Amino acid sequence: MASIVLLSVKQTAQTKAKRCLGSRLKGLAGAGGPSATFLPGREWLSKDLNLRFMSHGTAGRSAAGTTKRGALAFSGAVAVTAAAVAGFLANANHFQRAEMATTIPQKAKKKKEEEGDIAQRCRGFMSVPVTDISVLEKRKDEMSTKMEMLIMETQAEFCKALEEVDGGTFKVDKWQRKEGGGGISCVMQDGKVFEKAGVNVSVVFGYLTEEAAKQMRSRGKVLKGKDGKLPFCAMGVSSVIHPKNPHIPSVHFNYRYFEIEEEDGSKQWWFGGGTDLTPVYIDRDDAFLFHNTLKEACDKHHPKYYADFKKWCDRYFYVRHRGETRGIGGIFFDDLDSPNQEEAFNFVKSCARTVVPCYLPIVRKHLNDSFTQEEKDWQQVRRGRYVEFNLVYDRGVKFGLATPGSRIESILMSLPLTARWEYMHEPGKGSREAEMLEVLRNPKEWV
Amino acid sequence: MASIVLLSVKQTAQTKAKRCLGSRLKGLAGAGGPSATFLPGREWLSKDLNLRFMSHGTAGRSAAGTTKRGALAFSGAVAVTAAAVAGFLANANHFQRAEMATTIPQKAKKKKEEEGDIAQRCRGFMSVPVTDISVLEKRKDEMSTKMEMLIMETQAEFCKALEEVDGGTFKVDKWQRKEGGGGISCVMQDGKVFEKAGVNVSVVFGYLTEEAAKQMRSRGKVLKGKDGKLPFCAMGVSSVIHPKNPHIPSVHFNYRYFEIEEEDGSKQWWFGGGTDLTPVYIDRDDAFLFHNTLKEACDKHHPKYYADFKKWCDRYFYVRHRGETRGIGGIFFDDLDSPNQEEAFNFVKSCARTVVPCYLPIVRKHLNDSFTQEEKDWQQVRRGRYVEFNLVYDRGVKFGLATPGSRIESILMSLPLTARWEYMHEPGKGSREAEMLEVLRNPKEWV
Repeated sequence: MASIVLLSVKQTAQTKAKRCLGSRLKGLAGAGGPSATFLPGREWLSKDLNLRFMSHGTAGRSAAGTTKRGALAFSGAVAVTAAAVAGFLANANHFQRAEMATTIPQKAKKKKEEEGDIAQRCRGFMSVPVTDISVLEKRKDEMSTKMEMLIMETQAEFCKALEEVDGGTFKVDKWQRKEGGGGISCVMQDGKVFEKAGVNVSVVFGYLTEEAAKQMRSRGKVLKGKDGKLPFCAMGVSSVIHPKNPHIPSVHFNYRYFEIEEEDGSKQWWFGGGTDLTPVYIDRDDAFLFHNTLKEACDKHHPKYYADFKKWCDRYFYVRHRGETRGIGGIFFDDLDSPNQEEAFNFVKSCARTVVPCYLPIVRKHLNDSFTQEEKDWQQVRRGRYVEFNLVYDRGVKFGLATPGSRIESILMSLPLTARWEYMHEPGKGSREAEMLEVLRNPKEWV
Repeated sequence: MASIVLLSVKQTAQTKAKRCLGSRLKGLAGAGGPSATFLPGREWLSKDLNLRFMSHGTAGRSAAGTTKRGALAFSGAVAVTAAAVAGFLANANHFQRAEMATTIPQKAKKKKEEEGDIAQRCRGFMSVPVTDISVLEKRKDEMSTKMEMLIMETQAEFCKALEEVDGGTFKVDKWQRKEGGGGISCVMQDGKVFEKAGVNVSVVFGYLTEEAAKQMRSRGKVLKGKDGKLPFCAMGVSSVIHPKNPHIPSVHFNYRYFEIEEEDGSKQWWFGGGTDLTPVYIDRDDAFLFHNTLKEACDKHHPKYYADFKKWCDRYFYVRHRGETRGIGGIFFDDLDSPNQEEAFNFVKSCARTVVPCYLPIVRKHLNDSFTQEEKDWQQVRRGRYVEFNLVYDRGVKFGLATPGSRIESILMSLPLTARWEYMHEPGKGSREAEMLEVLRNPKEWV
């Protein structure tokens, strides 16, 4: 995850917003050709085909034969420490709301966004954005600008909520990718509440290599680039939070957007994302709150989204060799390009706006729960499973690790500070640990 | 590692010892067809081709085009706890020698083996062997019997040496693989000296599936089986030891043997293996002792073995995304089928006989070294890297995890009890931690 965004390319959807990609890349065109490495991801993609092609009631995407995808990992850059920018007035109310409700009134928020100018909104971010503010202002109606603002806001909102509850401060690294773009990694380690908390933004652009295009072609999809080059632009926010107290679950979310341009100027774009919870012990009220918050966000956009994306999540975060899911799920989706770009973005925005109200009430509820050494040990064993999923199955991590020059620290920021592997660990019958395992082996409906 | 044995199939070598495989499988032929799962391992194999095809001065194997290989993982079985068998008289002297010398007089040892009958030698093992003693006695001149005896002896010798130094006792699990064969897993966890110590033997046989054969064919090698079935037999001993004291290095070894039979009754066989050391801090004397012990074992068999297998080891245990080797190496080899079966076995036997004298003197030397919390933390960070290698790169682990029904606990027994991931961890300039990193980034010659 982190600086990695998974790509999937489809033939169905096109957008009119061509200017962004073209102008972003203008300066790069003559600067040495292909820059992003498109990895030979066939082995993973074919394995996950059922999952990735899972129908979820949106138009034009059920015919697997016409839908091709690949995966892109971005080569990293030197980390540049940037100062965190104080304040985040626009979102202060939002966070307060998160404590009280599981749904988010969108109207007031939307109005505020439309009113505030870009420079003003940027003041609340953890760092200046990856793209120059002047460029964002010039292209404020383009989807790439809207999405970059959303991921920066999501990062700031979530980081500030965590800082408030922990009392600690995020370390902010702004890094650049020499081929185009960069990212902002926010990490808090060994805090009072959080063992390790990472919230990462990346905004990268460049060209798919010829190898990349070939990889796509070998999967049946012919993508024609200008002089064999395919300009792309990808961005996302991702986060993994590991608390110290075993009664506070870990959480992960990731929301991303991708554009790729073909020779004829036509553009492919799509969104992906999800939020999922990994508790150490089952708390049914927590599970309900978490899933219900996501469901309400989904229900505003499509009646099938929650059910389908919940299933997708359970299937994606499956540790096959253990026969367990990583946690109690949430939602997961990819390739979202319907019903239109604006509405798809609005859905992603609704999801991104749930990250605080999904999680912070749970953190606060268990903040002072006492725990035993046995409970801490069980947490550490579960952390080991988390590591297993992330290193063995997570596509973002896999592609990132396989890409020379990736920013490894941002990719592996998702790993817990500490983990444990006990030989033949098996919880006692009827124990709370056994109850947790049972749920991981047989995913439940929580809402 | 553990219950997993990597296979590689070559066209060059054939053996006369056909009886073993045929008779082992006789009872299975009608019992439900293909049993072992041959994984689609192309992606890994092609990546590692250079490494795996690395020339090391032995005959008939440098023409990569004529040498094909695949990888096999064995589906697991229910673990059956078996009592550890006391005593190991034949090897008591050997262990004592290990304390004093880095070379092993082979003559006395060999004589003892030839004199002792199989049943008597088995009394010293950690468990009864996988194959019935009566069967081993009947086929005592076959390579599969010689190798099974060697791996059982190596397991017992090593376990007993570790128990003596730790004061703890290995937990012994004898497990069966319903399709044929099984294994013996010995694990000591949270001992006085060792945080986690695993020594595993597996002896499995069955048929390659048609899918397996197809995978081979797709890599250019046509292997013809009787009615589409290719009988195989594979066995090995493997071990990973993680001590508590950060001044005692971790060690890993694995020695294995494989047979596969084609339609015309011709048999492919080969050996593989290696031993490597993963210290937390550099101790040049330890590094010399370890490498020199291996070099002396190699030198008795081929003047190029040590240099070539040392290089191979450095390349195999490379954590690409970190730009570091896992440890300070040792030796690693595969596909060994020359100059003949007996001499190849003798070489493997020499290597297997070094596992105690390579490692135990180092353990004893640092047994009472004091250490700080900082040194313990650095050990935990290095353990994290160990986990990264094992879950991301190790072929045995990868294939094992991808095989439904594998004995996961035996495969992941190689993971440390505890590990740590710190964001942006960078040792101070001139520190002992920085010295360690420097060696991992630029492998050294130690002898």
